[in-house]
Amino acid sequence: MLPPASSYIGLEVGSDVLRGGRVNASGRIVTRYEQPLARTSVESLLNQLTAAVKAVDGTGDEAARAVGVAIPGIVAGNRVTMCANLPLLDDLALGDLLSGRLGRPALLENDANAAALAEAWQGAGRGGRSVLFVSLCTGIGAGIVADGRVWSGPNGYAGEVGHVQVETKGVPCACGSRGCLETIAGAVGWTRRARAALAGRASTLQPDHLEPAAIVAAAEAGDEVAREIVAETARALGAPLAAAIGLLNLDRVVLGGGPTACPLLLDALVVEARQRTLPRAFAECSFRLSELTEGACVLGAARVARVAMFGAADHR
Amino acid sequence: MLPPASSYIGLEVGSDVLRGGRVNASGRIVTRYEQPLARTSVESLLNQLTAAVKAVDGTGDEAARAVGVAIPGIVAGNRVTMCANLPLLDDLALGDLLSGRLGRPALLENDANAAALAEAWQGAGRGGRSVLFVSLCTGIGAGIVADGRVWSGPNGYAGEVGHVQVETKGVPCACGSRGCLETIAGAVGWTRRARAALAGRASTLQPDHLEPAAIVAAAEAGDEVAREIVAETARALGAPLAAAIGLLNLDRVVLGGGPTACPLLLDALVVEARQRTLPRAFAECSFRLSELTEGACVLGAARVARVAMFGAADHR
Repeated sequence: MLPPASSYIGLEVGSDVLRGGRVNASGRIVTRYEQPLARTSVESLLNQLTAAVKAVDGTGDEAARAVGVAIPGIVAGNRVTMCANLPLLDDLALGDLLSGRLGRPALLENDANAAALAEAWQGAGRGGRSVLFVSLCTGIGAGIVADGRVWSGPNGYAGEVGHVQVETKGVPCACGSRGCLETIAGAVGWTRRARAALAGRASTLQPDHLEPAAIVAAAEAGDEVAREIVAETARALGAPLAAAIGLLNLDRVVLGGGPTACPLLLDALVVEARQRTLPRAFAECSFRLSELTEGACVLGAARVARVAMFGAADHR
Repeated sequence: MLPPASSYIGLEVGSDVLRGGRVNASGRIVTRYEQPLARTSVESLLNQLTAAVKAVDGTGDEAARAVGVAIPGIVAGNRVTMCANLPLLDDLALGDLLSGRLGRPALLENDANAAALAEAWQGAGRGGRSVLFVSLCTGIGAGIVADGRVWSGPNGYAGEVGHVQVETKGVPCACGSRGCLETIAGAVGWTRRARAALAGRASTLQPDHLEPAAIVAAAEAGDEVAREIVAETARALGAPLAAAIGLLNLDRVVLGGGPTACPLLLDALVVEARQRTLPRAFAECSFRLSELTEGACVLGAARVARVAMFGAADHR
């Protein structure tokens, strides 16, 4: 059995910042680290990751057993296979390299998956056995947590729902396809749709401020055009969400990742899910906004390390 | 470690037949049982299940360690929560009752999930770590096998994709919704669509023989109307399938369950999946027709018992 004081360190590699924290057995972040990311070389990054661990670690019984690292890219096993925002990580066995430096286990996980695990453990997914975390940010990601474990798939692509096609005749997407979920529900999609919807209509929206947060604020203040954009987003998310509920018997859907994860969108998504799924499956599922904000990836990364070492039997 | 001879018994409760078999460690069914189902009472069914186990069991080292039972309904834990075709099982702790009779563990699983596990273990899913088995029968079901284990969800509804809405303005469904996958890709949907498509067109289809098997046969012989029905089915299956690939990083999709699981439909589905998913996720996934026929549920049920007792570490 684990001594009660055992703790784990979570690190989050952002596109320009490295965050870290030591997480105790109750799921509290007890020490923190945050610095601009040393992204010039693998060596400088490894040095910084090692320094971050040293900065947040405890002593004696409070020394962390293992380290988890949330990565903004695709992770398979202990290797980063692809990291568009930080190409120096491409095809790098970062987990093994870091583990060698630290002399203790270092585990990798995709950042959306780490956030999903954090929500399932300590946030809006608490109590769920089959949790989908949908990350609405510049792009659209998702993470699945089943019985307290991330399902990242054999190649780490699980949760990559942004390029599922939801409109066969939709607008072209950067991936080469058209009508991908991200072309509608991603940040660029919000702005494009708002610009089109504004044509000749009265609205409080400012044509040169059509970022998603502004659209959400206008919708919450009752602007009709902005409310249509939110409703349209919910419809686009509805198809993959309904499929996920039917496939996975989800008992919790958590919406997070950015300002578009708002009560209006959540309510509209619940209506979509009710219309599109078997009533009994819908009845087993509850829908919530994320409860964790910037600490989610650090918390989740620490939990990844904990689960890899000792399993998820303590997940409730 | 297990002795090499250890075997497990699988039983399949069909709507009017009980099938059983003892399955050896290599996944071969070495003895078989098949009788009309004793469906008049719980007592008669338990007696028959017990008799079936006795009929197929081995002796000494070859006696089965445990028994798995495939059920045509929703299973949660060791209880049948709903069984439309055999209502006497509704809300019955059949696993515990049977285990008490047999003096050894008895585990339940939904029949589509059992078939999915059989395909992943010994059929067209062999070698896959993230396998979706789609059962195309009167209704549409599915089973997910992740790393050699069935994911049935907290309430046993995982894989219940038949009532995911794929056409928001589609035809009414028996479930109260409209445009459910089953209204298009289920047996009744094939017949309804073929009848409508025939109006005023030349076709080899016989208006009074529009069952799915006849439509598939005509499509394979080149009939244009029948080929359109197949293509339409693939489009309906495309949306939930694309969502499943994106969500679960599937590396294998297996199509089975009935005559509509044919090469023409598989080929059309591959095209749908390619158009609707991230190229890298699509590239990781292969698509096959099921290799197991009537023995799948028996084989899968035996494997359910094996995995419940000793885990899935031997899954490749």
